[in-house]
Formats: sequence, C-alpha cells, structure tokens
Amino acid sequence: MKYSHLFAKTTKQPPKEADTINHKLLTQAGFVDQLMAGVYSYLPLGLKVLNNIGQVVREGMDEIGGQEVLMPIMHPKANWVTTGGWDKVDILFKVKSRTEKEYALGMSEEEVVTPLVMSRVNSYKDLPLYVYQIGWKYRDELRAKSGILRGREFLMKDMYSSHTSYEDFQRFYQVAKQAYLKIYKRLGLVAKVTEASGGSFTDKISYEFMVLTDAGEDEILYCTECDFCVNVEIAKVKVGDKCPNCKKGVLKQATASEVGNIFDLGQKYTKDFNFPVTLENREKVYPYMGCYGIGISRLMGVIVEKFNDETGIIWPDVVAPMKVHLVGLDLEDKKVNSQAEDLYKKFNHEDISVLYDDRVDVSAGAKFADADLIGIPYRVVVSKKTTDTLEVKRRDQKETEFLQFTELVRRIK
Amino acid sequence: MKYSHLFAKTTKQPPKEADTINHKLLTQAGFVDQLMAGVYSYLPLGLKVLNNIGQVVREGMDEIGGQEVLMPIMHPKANWVTTGGWDKVDILFKVKSRTEKEYALGMSEEEVVTPLVMSRVNSYKDLPLYVYQIGWKYRDELRAKSGILRGREFLMKDMYSSHTSYEDFQRFYQVAKQAYLKIYKRLGLVAKVTEASGGSFTDKISYEFMVLTDAGEDEILYCTECDFCVNVEIAKVKVGDKCPNCKKGVLKQATASEVGNIFDLGQKYTKDFNFPVTLENREKVYPYMGCYGIGISRLMGVIVEKFNDETGIIWPDVVAPMKVHLVGLDLEDKKVNSQAEDLYKKFNHEDISVLYDDRVDVSAGAKFADADLIGIPYRVVVSKKTTDTLEVKRRDQKETEFLQFTELVRRIK
Repeated sequence: MKYSHLFAKTTKQPPKEADTINHKLLTQAGFVDQLMAGVYSYLPLGLKVLNNIGQVVREGMDEIGGQEVLMPIMHPKANWVTTGGWDKVDILFKVKSRTEKEYALGMSEEEVVTPLVMSRVNSYKDLPLYVYQIGWKYRDELRAKSGILRGREFLMKDMYSSHTSYEDFQRFYQVAKQAYLKIYKRLGLVAKVTEASGGSFTDKISYEFMVLTDAGEDEILYCTECDFCVNVEIAKVKVGDKCPNCKKGVLKQATASEVGNIFDLGQKYTKDFNFPVTLENREKVYPYMGCYGIGISRLMGVIVEKFNDETGIIWPDVVAPMKVHLVGLDLEDKKVNSQAEDLYKKFNHEDISVLYDDRVDVSAGAKFADADLIGIPYRVVVSKKTTDTLEVKRRDQKETEFLQFTELVRRIK
Repeated sequence: MKYSHLFAKTTKQPPKEADTINHKLLTQAGFVDQLMAGVYSYLPLGLKVLNNIGQVVREGMDEIGGQEVLMPIMHPKANWVTTGGWDKVDILFKVKSRTEKEYALGMSEEEVVTPLVMSRVNSYKDLPLYVYQIGWKYRDELRAKSGILRGREFLMKDMYSSHTSYEDFQRFYQVAKQAYLKIYKRLGLVAKVTEASGGSFTDKISYEFMVLTDAGEDEILYCTECDFCVNVEIAKVKVGDKCPNCKKGVLKQATASEVGNIFDLGQKYTKDFNFPVTLENREKVYPYMGCYGIGISRLMGVIVEKFNDETGIIWPDVVAPMKVHLVGLDLEDKKVNSQAEDLYKKFNHEDISVLYDDRVDVSAGAKFADADLIGIPYRVVVSKKTTDTLEVKRRDQKETEFLQFTELVRRIK
C-alpha cells in the first residue's frame, strides 16, 4: 500500500472527546473513526489489526478443538423470554419491526447457541462440543467511554462448551484457561486471572482475565509474590493485607481492563430450552455449559494503552497492520525514486506487507513523525545516502541498524 | 476435520418451511441453520463457503483499487434524518435505547460512509477514492423467503466511490462493471447485466447483475442473440418483441436473482452532508458518488440453486468448504484404518483441506450419500481394495479415476 493512496491518513488534531490514549492515538493514526459514543468504524489499517487479533484468538480456539460458526446478531424475542433475559437484562437492545414484531440484538449468544447445538446433538457421543464465533455484540451501556475499550457495538469471540457431566466441564474449564493465557502472551500481554462473581444468572464463581492499565474500569487486588488476584467487587481482603494464598506477599490494588472471562453456566440454558441428551446408560441429562469470552476490539484498545510512547503506537509484531514502513526521502531525485519503488516491489514479492510513504512534497521530519504515530515494527529509509545496505529501525528500539535486504527479510519472517 | 467431530452433521429430515432448493440442501448438508424467517446461523462448513465467496469478492475489489474498511451496523438517527431516509425508507429497522435514544440498523451505508470519507478528504488530490466493506445488513422485509436468497439479516459487500466529476464517476462505473463480471465468472456464474430503476432516491438508471434461476424474485427480458437485458419493471418492450439493440434476436422472459447492483448516487449525499471539496482551480464541488453492492450470503444461495443434482450440492472449487472428502471404508480393519489416517495427515501436510469421514459404524452407502449431499469437489475412497493408487471421483463427474497421491495433489493445486 502506498501512503499517497491510503484512506485514511494521519491527522494532527486529536479527537475532541478523547478520554483515553487508545481513542486519541487510534484516531490520529487513522485506525478508527468514532461514529458516536461507543460505536466506531475500522479504517484500512485498523481493520487489519482487528483481523490479526481475531486470527490469534481463532488459532487458540482451534487448538483446543473449537469449531467456528457465525450466529445471527438479530434474535427472536421468544428465545430471550424463555431464559428470562428479555425483562431482566437491562443492557439488551430491542428492535421493533414495522409489523410490531420484536427482536433482541445479541449481547451474548446463549439464547441462540443452546437451541442450535441441542437441535443437532443426539446423544452423549456428540459431546463434549466447543462451538465459537467471532462476531459483533450490542450492549445498551449508559456510559460508553474509553475509546474502543467499552463500546455499545464491539467485536467479541464467544465460545460455548457443552458437556455430559460437571466434571467434564471442569476439566475443559482448565484447558480453556491455559489457552487464554497463551493467547494473551502471543499478543504481548500479561493477564492476571481473577475470580469474580458469575454475572446475572449464576451464583457461581467465574474467571476474569485482567490486564493492568490505567484506562481500565476494574479494580483488582493482587499479590506481590504469587498469582493470587481478586476483583475488589467480591474481595474479602483489602490493600496491605497479607496474601491469603501464599501467606508471604502483600496485596496491592491496581486498575485493570477485563480482556476475557469464563463463566460456568451450569444447566440453566439446557433446562430453559428443555434439551436433555441421552447417556450411554440410557439416562437423560441436561448438558452442562460454559461460556468463554474474549473482547477482540477491546484488546486492540488495551494493546495501544500498553504499547505506546509520547510519539505514537508501538504495535507488537503479531498484530501490526503491516510489517514494514518504507520511508522514501529525496524522492524528487529520479534515481532514489526508482530505488524506493524497486524496494517496495521486492517486499511485496517476498509477501512482506509494506506501507510505502511515497509522498514527494512532505518533509523527512513529518514522514518520521507519521511512522512513529502509526507504529509499524520495521522502519526502512531510502534516500540519497542509501547504498547497498538499508537503514532499518525497529519501532520499539532506539538504534538504527544497517542491513542487507536478504538479512532484513530473514529477520521479519 | 474429521467427520466424527464435525458440528453439524447432515440430517435426513428436510426443514419444514423450505420453499427453495438452497434452503433445503444447505440445511440438510449442515451448512446453515434457520433461527427465524430471513435470519440464519452459518455452521462450520457454511462459514467456510461464506468466507470463500467473500474472499473472491475482496480480491475483485482490491484489484480495482478498493480499500477495505468496516463500518458500524448501528447508526445514529441524525444521519438518517439528514438524508430523509429515517421517514422514507420503510425497510429501515429502528432501535430505541433504554434512555429513549434512537438508532437505525444499517441497510446500506451512505449515511455513514459519506461523512466518514469527507471528514478525511481535504482536496481533489485525495479523489477518486473507493472504500468498501463486507458486513451484515438489516432490512425489515415483510416477507423474508427463499432460504438465504432474501434475508432480514444478510452479508453484503458494499463499495462507495467518490469523484470530483461526473465523467470520472462514469469511467469508474465501467471499471466496476467489468470487475463484477469477472467476480461472477470466478464463482462459476453467468450474470446478465440489466438496466433498472435507481431505487428510492434517484431517477437515474442503475445496473443490476442477474443470474437466471427459478428461485429468484426478479423477472427480466433478455435477447436470444445479444447482451440486451432489462428488468420487466422498467421495460418498454415485451416478450416476443424483436430486440431493440441488435434488431436480430427475440426477447425472452426469465426469472432471475439479483446478485449485484451499481447505483449512480450523484451528489445527493455529499450535498445532504454538505461536504464539498476544493478543486485545483480553487473552485468547490460536491463530489459525485457511486454505490456498488454484491450480496455475499445471497450468492451462496444462488450457487446452490445453480449447482446441484438430485443427491445434493456440487460446489464450484473456488468456494467449496474443503477440497477433498476422504471416505474411509472397512475402518474396523486396522491396516485400512491406519492407511486412511496416514492419507488424512498427508493432505493436511500438503495444506489441502480435507473432510475425513472416519465413522466406523456407518455403511458405505450412507457415507457416499453424505459426500454427495455435502458436495466437496474431490471424493477419495480408502478401503480394503485400495492399492498404491487412490480411487478419486469429482463431484461434478460420473467417472471414477485411479490416481497416485502426487498426481491428485498436482491437480488440486
């Protein structure tokens, strides 16, 4: 992609309402555009990042046997009446057709996945089953804020597991927890696992996966020595207490953003929809279900909150919109211009994604500032001074290196 | 993917309400599941087909300079009031929040893309610009029917072009038309291009791309000799007339499904949102816009309507959910079983997608029937009789061939 053709380019003006780093930087760098509070458009570079995060999550789910589907956003009212959610869930968006039919916009998909799974599962032989999707969710939040951290419309991976026994659910609960930690690690994040309340419909404990960031909206207590971590909402301990787990560390409080959760749904939904399965011994049992969420668009915001400096975003390689930001200087010089064009083609030929700043009427300083703002991992400069080695700088390092093209390709791949 | 693990498997029972071949076959083969009239879940194999069609369309748009974005589904009421659509568009779904705020669900995105594009376009130098997305659309249809051909929720590619002059729009209109015809050709379809009325907001003529199929909902007149084609809604000719274009052929009537359209939007939206751009001569002009739609989920239905026989679906290679359907017979025999497993691994190793029917308690007849129903291009059988050549049958041919593994791989790739 040539920068001169790119929609949309960087802007100097920060967005008016921006209350967080992710909102400010993602808008200025041309990744997202706010349509209204909590609702964003994803621009070409932003959509690439969103898809890259989605792909990391997808691979994590496929590895533990997840099967990807895509369920509707528009749900029939009847399904939500069956579970009690129609009246009880205050953040549920409702739609009325011109013939007065009512629908809900999916905020979670138990109401759809339970009848879907059970209608195609005949016996214990088809279980356990792990079905997931990456899809847009809708929540009627009173206050949508913090850029793409808390949206009314947001992209989520939601997986639902079905089991013939509670023990089998508990086994998989641990498998999914490990898969989640691996996903966050691949994204460059360290997530703390807290226990929290189970939400609207269960008194069970759930797992929340928290990344420490001041832009978050949760308060957690964590141990300075061990893995102990708890949401203050349900904590029976307080700041400064000795850790109840290791008895060595002290509890500290921190602000965090929830980037994932796992709920024990028990038999609520299979009982609500009356979907028992037959066991090997011919007994009937209502399957046990779990729900496993990861906020994809929120993760994009959290990554920006964690990886930035005063000049812009610093994307981790695995989610970066492009691998190389090729900065062409002195492009009014025909020789330099054709050298830069050749290099652009060579990167494309090697299947290395590259954003080529081909503008001739823009200063070197402005081009470097844009490269820093956008945050692509490898910056390569071509100018009058360029010889047979390339001037390469990683966005997350201060030093410039001089490398042969083949050596650079080897590093990137 | 092993068939024993696949969610969801084939079903013998056709869906109750199925009024079309696509609804019947896609449901029985386990590709989609109807949640309510006009709203479907895409199951693992169905989602792969949907993504494959989307990818063909994406490549076609990228080739002509399209830039992919993703705009919101939930729109602020104000934008639809600005264009007059809030009161005039009867198929617009409306949402009210708990604080009585009103939103529209996107049925098309002029109301979002116009302010988005114009807020980031400063001068004539940034135009022309072609922005597109592949996203879910919502239409409050009185009668949703014909399986996934006419949905209340459906997947669409919608591109919007912006130009400084009407002439430039007309130039690109032809470029897009050729790109569309190439896309349909890649999908194995022959589309006729008709002229039709321009829809709610313009008296201009638009292009419609029609595929002849009895499940369609449009009636067209076409010439037996030349490319002349017109929607009967605006036709000034009738069946049996001499073709007004070539003066040789005779006009025939046929039922067709609209798989794409191109609208000349003129300056309506740029004027509504008051977004002029500055030309080189410092004059201001309201950009001319075009809208270019392709129904992705509808195309999936149309492809099934066109490519099927009495036993099931026959997917064109480019959209097929998998390349190979490996049918294992005599799997109670350990030697055959390990031979089939090895072959399954070898296909995976070659990055050739394969559905392996590994069931041991199912007859050969039932397995062949499932393979025919699902419609994957290459069926490969492993049984006691298998020697060092493989028994291969293409779904769209009657003859069985015997091939070496490497020869089969070469053909598939």
